[in-house]
Amino acid sequence: MREIVCRKGTVSSGVRVVPEEVPIALSYGGSTQAVMMGTPSDLADFAVGFSLTEGIIASAAEIEKIEVVEEPKGIDVQITLVEHKEDALRQRRRHMAGPVGCGLCGIESIEQAIRPVPQLGTVDITLTGQQVAAAIGALNDAQPLHGETHAVHGAAFFVPGRGLVAVREDVGRHNALDKLIGAVMAQGIKGAEGAVVVTSRVSVEMVQKAAILGAPILIAISAPTALAIRTAEDAGMTLVALARGADFEVFTRADRINTGAMSHVA
Amino acid sequence: MREIVCRKGTVSSGVRVVPEEVPIALSYGGSTQAVMMGTPSDLADFAVGFSLTEGIIASAAEIEKIEVVEEPKGIDVQITLVEHKEDALRQRRRHMAGPVGCGLCGIESIEQAIRPVPQLGTVDITLTGQQVAAAIGALNDAQPLHGETHAVHGAAFFVPGRGLVAVREDVGRHNALDKLIGAVMAQGIKGAEGAVVVTSRVSVEMVQKAAILGAPILIAISAPTALAIRTAEDAGMTLVALARGADFEVFTRADRINTGAMSHVA
Repeated sequence: MREIVCRKGTVSSGVRVVPEEVPIALSYGGSTQAVMMGTPSDLADFAVGFSLTEGIIASAAEIEKIEVVEEPKGIDVQITLVEHKEDALRQRRRHMAGPVGCGLCGIESIEQAIRPVPQLGTVDITLTGQQVAAAIGALNDAQPLHGETHAVHGAAFFVPGRGLVAVREDVGRHNALDKLIGAVMAQGIKGAEGAVVVTSRVSVEMVQKAAILGAPILIAISAPTALAIRTAEDAGMTLVALARGADFEVFTRADRINTGAMSHVA
Repeated sequence: MREIVCRKGTVSSGVRVVPEEVPIALSYGGSTQAVMMGTPSDLADFAVGFSLTEGIIASAAEIEKIEVVEEPKGIDVQITLVEHKEDALRQRRRHMAGPVGCGLCGIESIEQAIRPVPQLGTVDITLTGQQVAAAIGALNDAQPLHGETHAVHGAAFFVPGRGLVAVREDVGRHNALDKLIGAVMAQGIKGAEGAVVVTSRVSVEMVQKAAILGAPILIAISAPTALAIRTAEDAGMTLVALARGADFEVFTRADRINTGAMSHVA
């Protein structure tokens, strides 16, 4: 994109690479469920992850077919569910008619906005401080679109001993996480095997999505909200945030972060 | 919030101030229109700004009463419109029943997602490079909640000769801008008099909201998307982004930024 660059009082012309942002519709059985602005990449992963985190499916096997159709002004991701799931969604939609929600999918009341969060199992992984730093470092190095534009969010899945097994990007942080969740499911990896790593702030929805995947640890570069911390506590999730280089802060369930090799001060 | 802090291999305990995040319902005539996660401050401004940017009202005078009601799990902002507007909204809702949208208010199709953007007038303001830098600097200094938490977005309105006339904060960047727009309207200031300044990235909705206020200039600390740039171009809006200290980039309608006193290179 051609632009005018002002640096230290000097004006020049420049060219900046900026990320695309397009309306992406997610349709089930021919009816549009949601339209989001997002980055037009990894849309099959997005379809799987969104379907899971919105409670439309319980496993990737419940999706029969995904077709990505380019429309003049956006992209329609057409999802065909297995038959009994199509029926269940049609039933659910009938109850959803009425005033519509914003920012939260189809939410019509304050009670609905705070969904019960899934409980994470007790037998799972721990990470050392070095692994937390390695996960963040690896994500910083594995974002091609962010490298070009410095303007998109990234989400990754870190498995101890294997490193990052998937990285996804989007202009929207919720979309990036939904795409990642779809990619992890597509590889047949269980959420309990690793940690979700995100470049963004942690609002409550990020904790809810990671918990739905079953990830016991969520690591974020930016800060959490108070509600996100309480929700991680409720889920039994380890929330690590403000993670930059070797520095990070652990807000909940610190027992999954092994700091034994680090020096401790009172 | 009590937490464990890991810094350069040393573990200590710490306390971090984190921002609250609560479900905020916006209700008109007793029916909930939308529920958003947000910061529970300046909710009357939020009600006015949201009502304007969602096309529910054309001026603040069309709102008769705003009541902020604390509920057990969130806040209900109950808005009473003047009578003919209540009728119009009821009518509009009847057409909105059906599958619901996510991230965009009640959007059911790709076409609806790309709203036509209002055209800005031609007779308006210009800013010098120094004023752009001053506006950004003033916003950085005027965010009490961000100062405490380093985790919320800010939006401000800069009027040449007067400086920042309003600043609002929220964990959500859309909410921060809606609150600002409400605050500007409440002061009887016209959008054409100044520039909107935001701390966040510029996606298309940020340009649309600023254009609905009538602001000819939008200045952002972070980067824009390609669609945001095209939409600013369509609206005739000057879009300045990646504005940090004295450095910034002008993507559209550079004629409103007076760089005459700066040195120019080819």
